[in-house]
Amino acid sequence: MMKMLGSVTLREVGPRDGFQSLKRFVPTDQKLRIIEAVARAGVAEIETTSFVSPKALPQMADAGELMGKVPHQGVVHAAMVPNVTGARHALSAGVDRLVVVISASEAHNRANVRRSIRRSVDGLDTIFGHATPARIPVTGALAVAFGCPFQGDVPETSVYRLAGEYVSRGADSVILADTTGMASPLRVEKMVRQFKDRFPDTRLILHFHNNRGVAMANLLAALAAGADTFDTAVGGIGGCPYVPRAAGNLATEDVVFMLEDMGIHTGIDLALMIEAAQKLEKILGYTLPGQVMKSGPRNPKHCHRSC
Amino acid sequence: MMKMLGSVTLREVGPRDGFQSLKRFVPTDQKLRIIEAVARAGVAEIETTSFVSPKALPQMADAGELMGKVPHQGVVHAAMVPNVTGARHALSAGVDRLVVVISASEAHNRANVRRSIRRSVDGLDTIFGHATPARIPVTGALAVAFGCPFQGDVPETSVYRLAGEYVSRGADSVILADTTGMASPLRVEKMVRQFKDRFPDTRLILHFHNNRGVAMANLLAALAAGADTFDTAVGGIGGCPYVPRAAGNLATEDVVFMLEDMGIHTGIDLALMIEAAQKLEKILGYTLPGQVMKSGPRNPKHCHRSC
Repeated sequence: MMKMLGSVTLREVGPRDGFQSLKRFVPTDQKLRIIEAVARAGVAEIETTSFVSPKALPQMADAGELMGKVPHQGVVHAAMVPNVTGARHALSAGVDRLVVVISASEAHNRANVRRSIRRSVDGLDTIFGHATPARIPVTGALAVAFGCPFQGDVPETSVYRLAGEYVSRGADSVILADTTGMASPLRVEKMVRQFKDRFPDTRLILHFHNNRGVAMANLLAALAAGADTFDTAVGGIGGCPYVPRAAGNLATEDVVFMLEDMGIHTGIDLALMIEAAQKLEKILGYTLPGQVMKSGPRNPKHCHRSC
Repeated sequence: MMKMLGSVTLREVGPRDGFQSLKRFVPTDQKLRIIEAVARAGVAEIETTSFVSPKALPQMADAGELMGKVPHQGVVHAAMVPNVTGARHALSAGVDRLVVVISASEAHNRANVRRSIRRSVDGLDTIFGHATPARIPVTGALAVAFGCPFQGDVPETSVYRLAGEYVSRGADSVILADTTGMASPLRVEKMVRQFKDRFPDTRLILHFHNNRGVAMANLLAALAAGADTFDTAVGGIGGCPYVPRAAGNLATEDVVFMLEDMGIHTGIDLALMIEAAQKLEKILGYTLPGQVMKSGPRNPKHCHRSC
């Protein structure tokens, strides 16, 4: 039998990864309503926004305002930052955690944050130099860790070298992100095992996009290899705005359904998370990729004939 | 590490499960084009149609005509039948294999084929009595094997008892169908192991619907437990017409992508299967749930910025 953990942590990334990927700006009060709804469902950490140039990402232009308005009791509000300037703004705005992002491939880092990996790594000392004395923990994210849409396979050595750059500066956790859905279960299992061997004291977080329909199987493979923390997004929003829809993150409520049905505790109330997803669908005005929000928990009485 | 098989068989069920679930009749020549396209991609068995009352399922009214027109070389054309009349028609029409269906719950069997399980089982002797002398192999399908939308959990004993009814009459294979997406990985793993213990000489086929987003993880769990045959549908079509869209079968091309990336041979050409899915999307005129048909095999160069 598969050996499974008794509990798993889901980081809610919808407010950052989801709202960032839309072609329009979601008003701050609507973002707040969703953040409050997922917090109410029991999520312990939210990736709430991203501190980036509003020219590059106008969808995140309200990052500072939003961080000032979210309820901080009982929930960690993390923010993604691509560079030193973003980190400074995030810290001034009162984030609970910084998520720094570098891509594991040179081509993707240049496309994503417009600099070489070398320059991104050079900025880390300053970022940690600000965060550490302020006692704000740092998560190091590695985009395209399972494959790059420009260069294809990404050498594992690049992934571990960059993870080491984060960990040696004091990051307590590392996100391996399958940014464009290029992972598959055996790649994931291998990477999880190797990462845990190399960085036994660092929390590993997996972030899977569903561009090729394999994200939930990748999560299961990671879980079976001992991973215990995953990024998911309410309603399954997110993903790259240039990839056709339904290629986003795993829907938080779908993952909660699966894990709880396997006897794995998430601390998240499924009914409340479905409510949050339905609220989000209403705000966005189109059908979201999440499935449990359509079919219900497990006894829906939807189906009346041959299937 | 997960132990995986070197090769897996995918039964293409799109032409039956997909076309049956639509609200309109797909013209026979369009069905033929899709069947020819998936056969060209290398699929070895297709569930081509269903022999049912045209009053109950007008979408399948051309079953006999279709079976007469499909190219039989190199491909097994199976047909689903709910009862003795369907089986007779299917055999006269020249099917290569019969797939008989009974639900593992009383309520679903009544809703699906409008009779008690007892009456369905009573019909099996006649069905096998026609098929066996004609040397047409029979697969026994069990709907709602992982949970019933009416009664909830389905006792495993009901599943094995009905599997035994099929096997004792000469079925060489049994399909366990998660008709409304109520399975999760540990349920699947347990059922696969138990089935293989009880019926070591019977081919086990798993049929997963994606109503709760878990189908690909269920397939991986079944694979890890030793299953080697799965039902999938081009483009991810199918599922119950009364469940909102994208709740269909696993997309054949998504499963091919995942398995081949894991080094597991399917005998199916991914590029040709994507072509078949795109052809189908054109015929149906709406976006299908399959993901690989949108993102491409693995190096799509779709994504140009932060994801």
